Amino acid sequence: MRQAGGGSDGVSPGNVPVCYYGPGGRVPSSLERRARAAEVFLRCAACGLAVLAAALLGADRQTRVFFSIQKVARYTDMQSLVLLVIANGMAACYSLIQGARCLVSIVRGGVLLSRPLAWAIFSCDQVMAYIVISAVAAAMEAALIGKYGQPEFQWMKTCHLYKRFCAQAGGGVACAIAASVNMVGIALLSAFNLFRLYGNGGGKAAGGK
Amino acid sequence: MRQAGGGSDGVSPGNVPVCYYGPGGRVPSSLERRARAAEVFLRCAACGLAVLAAALLGADRQTRVFFSIQKVARYTDMQSLVLLVIANGMAACYSLIQGARCLVSIVRGGVLLSRPLAWAIFSCDQVMAYIVISAVAAAMEAALIGKYGQPEFQWMKTCHLYKRFCAQAGGGVACAIAASVNMVGIALLSAFNLFRLYGNGGGKAAGGK
Repeated sequence: MRQAGGGSDGVSPGNVPVCYYGPGGRVPSSLERRARAAEVFLRCAACGLAVLAAALLGADRQTRVFFSIQKVARYTDMQSLVLLVIANGMAACYSLIQGARCLVSIVRGGVLLSRPLAWAIFSCDQVMAYIVISAVAAAMEAALIGKYGQPEFQWMKTCHLYKRFCAQAGGGVACAIAASVNMVGIALLSAFNLFRLYGNGGGKAAGGK
Repeated sequence: MRQAGGGSDGVSPGNVPVCYYGPGGRVPSSLERRARAAEVFLRCAACGLAVLAAALLGADRQTRVFFSIQKVARYTDMQSLVLLVIANGMAACYSLIQGARCLVSIVRGGVLLSRPLAWAIFSCDQVMAYIVISAVAAAMEAALIGKYGQPEFQWMKTCHLYKRFCAQAGGGVACAIAASVNMVGIALLSAFNLFRLYGNGGGKAAGGK
């Protein structure tokens, strides 16, 4: 399977491929290979970190007894942690699907991505990155209030009462931060994959488009 | 001032311009004009909205008397609002400078942006967008706790005590959300401006690069 009218390295804006791996062992450009390898690595890392974050937060629970009254701290007690678990669950599923797509495209070779498909992947990646970043920021704000309190509004710190719960939640938030860094990297990579299709002045020059 | 070896519409990846406005009234491509006009509009709107958000939050103050004790609510009582004011101040200054650069480039014409400059603008735009989004998410989390409380941790709602303060803070956060939407748009536009320079398979094909 060869591209019609390919450029010197088999990539032309007129054909709008994002990458091309020919079945005959034809080597793609080094930029293509690096971008595709980075994408697979980032998507797998984001998936693993998001699963770890969601698992750490979801399993977080501590029971304490205060004056014969038993109290249980769970992640569901704090809306921002629930939001973070949901966001990380979505990010993990999405990264898994997209990572599988990338791997299949590498293994099977000859995958041509059209502009609409590149636009769809780019849009989803951007939305996911901003959702995860926002959820992390909201959870960090709630975690800081839990750790240090907000005395002006009589919001007391609670982490000295539920130390193990807070430590595990901190680990979950740290994993979510790492996952969000990966999601930002993925968003930048898919922006690269999309917008270079608009090279040469909107694809009008030297591509016959 | 003309580009050496320009393509059919004066834009070639080999010369790495982002846009070209010739002094002789030469009309740039419609995509170029739309992108540049959108960039100026988004940067001006982001600047105005960020200034408005910072002003609303910075001037927010309400004094109440509880049992002969006078209490004053200010934005400085809540760290996330301080962070939001700082982030919006930074975004306003940055958008003003970048908007002025865009306007000067349109008025003077003949501006060629190199890849390093496009990378610098892209990086700053991305960082600013993520900073503003994070600050907005953190402030929204604190605002929601202020509005509805978090009874599981004995964090009482305070907005029924400081209604005017909360209403004005809500307006400030709304402006900050609108500013952050503009910043995201700017980040996408600068990604478009940068990565299309890498069109044609890393600029190797049809551009002599």
